[in-house]
Amino acid sequence: MNISIIAVGTELLMGKTVNTNATYLSKAINDLGHSVKYHMTIGDNPERLSETLKYLLNLSDMVITTGGLGPTQDDLTKEVIAQTFNQEMVKDCKAYELLTDRFKMFNVKMTENNVKQAYLPQNSIPMYNEKGTAPGFIAISDNKYIAALPGPPREMKHMFEKSLKPFLQDKSSSVICSEYINLFGIGESSAESLIDDIVSDQTNPTIAMYANIGQVSIRVTSSATNEEDALNLLKPTVDKITNVLKPYVIGFGDKNLLEITSEMLIQKGLSLSLAESCTGGMIASEFINLPGASAFMDRSFVTYSNEAKMDILKVPSKILEDFGAVSQETCLAMLEGLQNENTDVTLAVTGIAGPSGGTEDKPVGLVYIGVQYKDKVTVKKYNFTGDRFVIRRRSTLYAINMIREMIQ
Amino acid sequence: MNISIIAVGTELLMGKTVNTNATYLSKAINDLGHSVKYHMTIGDNPERLSETLKYLLNLSDMVITTGGLGPTQDDLTKEVIAQTFNQEMVKDCKAYELLTDRFKMFNVKMTENNVKQAYLPQNSIPMYNEKGTAPGFIAISDNKYIAALPGPPREMKHMFEKSLKPFLQDKSSSVICSEYINLFGIGESSAESLIDDIVSDQTNPTIAMYANIGQVSIRVTSSATNEEDALNLLKPTVDKITNVLKPYVIGFGDKNLLEITSEMLIQKGLSLSLAESCTGGMIASEFINLPGASAFMDRSFVTYSNEAKMDILKVPSKILEDFGAVSQETCLAMLEGLQNENTDVTLAVTGIAGPSGGTEDKPVGLVYIGVQYKDKVTVKKYNFTGDRFVIRRRSTLYAINMIREMIQ
Repeated sequence: MNISIIAVGTELLMGKTVNTNATYLSKAINDLGHSVKYHMTIGDNPERLSETLKYLLNLSDMVITTGGLGPTQDDLTKEVIAQTFNQEMVKDCKAYELLTDRFKMFNVKMTENNVKQAYLPQNSIPMYNEKGTAPGFIAISDNKYIAALPGPPREMKHMFEKSLKPFLQDKSSSVICSEYINLFGIGESSAESLIDDIVSDQTNPTIAMYANIGQVSIRVTSSATNEEDALNLLKPTVDKITNVLKPYVIGFGDKNLLEITSEMLIQKGLSLSLAESCTGGMIASEFINLPGASAFMDRSFVTYSNEAKMDILKVPSKILEDFGAVSQETCLAMLEGLQNENTDVTLAVTGIAGPSGGTEDKPVGLVYIGVQYKDKVTVKKYNFTGDRFVIRRRSTLYAINMIREMIQ
Repeated sequence: MNISIIAVGTELLMGKTVNTNATYLSKAINDLGHSVKYHMTIGDNPERLSETLKYLLNLSDMVITTGGLGPTQDDLTKEVIAQTFNQEMVKDCKAYELLTDRFKMFNVKMTENNVKQAYLPQNSIPMYNEKGTAPGFIAISDNKYIAALPGPPREMKHMFEKSLKPFLQDKSSSVICSEYINLFGIGESSAESLIDDIVSDQTNPTIAMYANIGQVSIRVTSSATNEEDALNLLKPTVDKITNVLKPYVIGFGDKNLLEITSEMLIQKGLSLSLAESCTGGMIASEFINLPGASAFMDRSFVTYSNEAKMDILKVPSKILEDFGAVSQETCLAMLEGLQNENTDVTLAVTGIAGPSGGTEDKPVGLVYIGVQYKDKVTVKKYNFTGDRFVIRRRSTLYAINMIREMIQ
C-alpha cells in the first residue's frame, strides 16, 4: 500500500516539537513492505485537516493521522475523519469501559469532554489505548483507510505496534522478512561502494542503508507468499553482504554497539573502569543509561584538568610536560592509574574536542583511546572531524567499540 | 506572510532522518512574525515536487524547500521550481566563482554535474552557500515566492540566517521584536495558569510557550511600525510575566540553564567538582560539551558502585549500611569526600533511575542532590517521574540549577 502520514498539531508549526512520529512510522511501514508517499503537518484546524485528508486520500491507499485525539476543543481529528467518510460517531462500549476504569484508577471525575473520547466513527476498527485515554481507530470507506493514532510518541508507538502493525501485515499481499546488518567503523558511502554489485539490479530482497554518527545499518527486506520462501530469499543476500563487510559487522537485528558491548561485559562477568578527558563523562553516561549497568560499571573518572590526571590517576607530571596531555604516553599512564583489584577492563580517552586548543602538530580532533584487558593493552590514535559534540560523540563510540573488540 | 515548508528527500520517507529543518525554520519564521501553514515531505521525485509546489503555492504566500540542491541526478529541486514559475535556468557568475574556488581549495576536479550547481532560475535572488557547494535562491513570480535551501542542517541554518531571514524581515509589514523569558522548575501548564490573565485577549504582543524536559521558555512577540514602538509594546508584558513567575526565571534571550550556570562559574572564577551516581557522568558531559569548560571543570567521579563510593569518596560503610546508597546521609558523605584544595563548588547526586531497584520506601525516581559552596551546604530530595533516561536527565538539570542558585 501507499501510505501518507498527517501530523496534526499547531505546536509542530510553531517549531515547538520535532515530528519524530513521522520518522518512527515511516521506518516501521517500510519494514512491513509498504511505502510512504507523503508526510504532512497541519495545525489544529478542522477545515485544513478535511482538505488535507481529501488531497492525500486521492494520492494514497491509506492515511495515518497522529495527534488531535485528546479531550479538548482543539482535538477534532476524529470528527473530521468521520465527516470525510460520511460516517456517524457512535459510542464504543469497550472504549467507554476502559476510560471509566482509568478515571477511577486515578480517582478523577470524568467530564462530558472525556466521555466524547469513547465515540468512534461507525464501522471503524477500534485501537484501544493502554498508555493514555484517547482511543485510536481505523476507518474504512471504498477501499481507502484512515488510521488515527494519538500524538504523544509513547502512546502512538504502543498503539501502532499492538494494533496498526498487525493490520498492515495482513494487508500486505505477501510475507515480508527483514534483517538488519549492523556495522561500525565504516561510512555509509564506503559501505555502499563495497556492496555495489550486490545492490545493483536487486529488487527482492531490497537493500537500504541507515546511517548515524559512526554507525551504519543495512536493512535487507524480502517478500514472498510464505515466510519460509521469504527467509530463503533473504539469507543468501545477508550472507553475501556480511561476508564482504565482515571486518565492520558488529551484529544483527535491533541491537546497537552499546547494547552489544554491555551484553558482552555482563555475559563474561567483566567489570569496567573508565578515565575520560575530552569525552568528559559521555562514555560512562552512555553505559549507565542502559538498565543493568550496575552489573559491570565500577567507576569512572572525569579527569579534565592536568591536576586531576596527576592527583587521581597518578599520571607523572614529567609525562604531561614531555608529551602533553593528549599523547599516547599520557593515555597509557591514565590506563595504568586506573588499575585496581575490582576492575577487569579499563579504558582511557584523551583528546582535543575543540573548537580551540588545536596546533599544527596536534589538531582539533586528535584523540587517543586506550583499552587494557588482562595483559593486553591497545592504544589507538584517531583524527576525528566535526564540531565539539561530534568529536566527543565519535570518541565515545570508537571507545565502546574498542572495548567490544578487546573482550570479543 | 503565510509560509509552507517542503522537505525533499526519500530518506525522510524511509524513516532514516528526522525532519529537524522544519522545526528550526518554523520557530524562526514565527519569531519574525510570519506564520507557518503546512509542512510537507516528499521523495526525490520531480512530478510529486511539481504537484506539491502547485498545491501549496495556492494555499501560501511563500513556499520554502529544503533539500535536493546537490549535484547528483536525484537533486532536481531547482529545475522543478524553475518550471513551476516558467523560468529559464541561467548561470550565476558569482555562484560559479565560489564553486570553482571551493573545488580548488579541496583540490578536486569539477565535473559537469558540479557546474550545474551554479545555474539558478532567472531573476531569482541568489543565496550563496558558505558551508557547502549548493547555492540556494529565492524565486519570484506573481507575488508568490519559492525559497530553496540546502538539506544538510548546518548549511540550511547558515543560509537561512544570512540570506533568507533578512528577506523575511523586509517582507514583514511591521517591525517584530521578541524576547524569551527562560524558566526552570515549573511545568508548562502551571506556568500557563499563573499568567492566564496576562495571556487572555492578548493580541499584541503575543505570548507563546516552548517546553522541554524541566525547562520552559515564554516568547513574547510584539509588532509595530518601528522598533521603538515594538520594544515599548514588549516591555510591560515581559515585566508583568517576569514579576509573576519571578521564582522560576533564570534568564532572558537564547541562553539555557547550562550556559547561564557555566558563565556564572567562569565569571566568578569558581572551580567545580562532581560526584555522580545515577546521573553517571551526564552532568560532567553536559558541562564539558560547552567550549571553555576547562576554565572551571576540575574533576568528576562516577561512583556507581558502593565500593567506588567507599574507595574514592571515602563514604563510610556504616552510612551505606545504615541509610542506603540513596539517602541524604550518603549524599552528604559524597560531598565531604569531594573536598579538595582545588575545588570551590562541589556537587553530589545519588538516586534510583529505575526501571528496577525501587521499593515502597525508596521508589524509582527518588534522587538526592547536594551542593556545597564555601560554608554553605544544601541537600534536596526529589521524586522525579519518567523512564530511566528522563529521570537521569531531570536529575542533571536540577543539579545544574542547584549550582546556579547556590553561587548566585
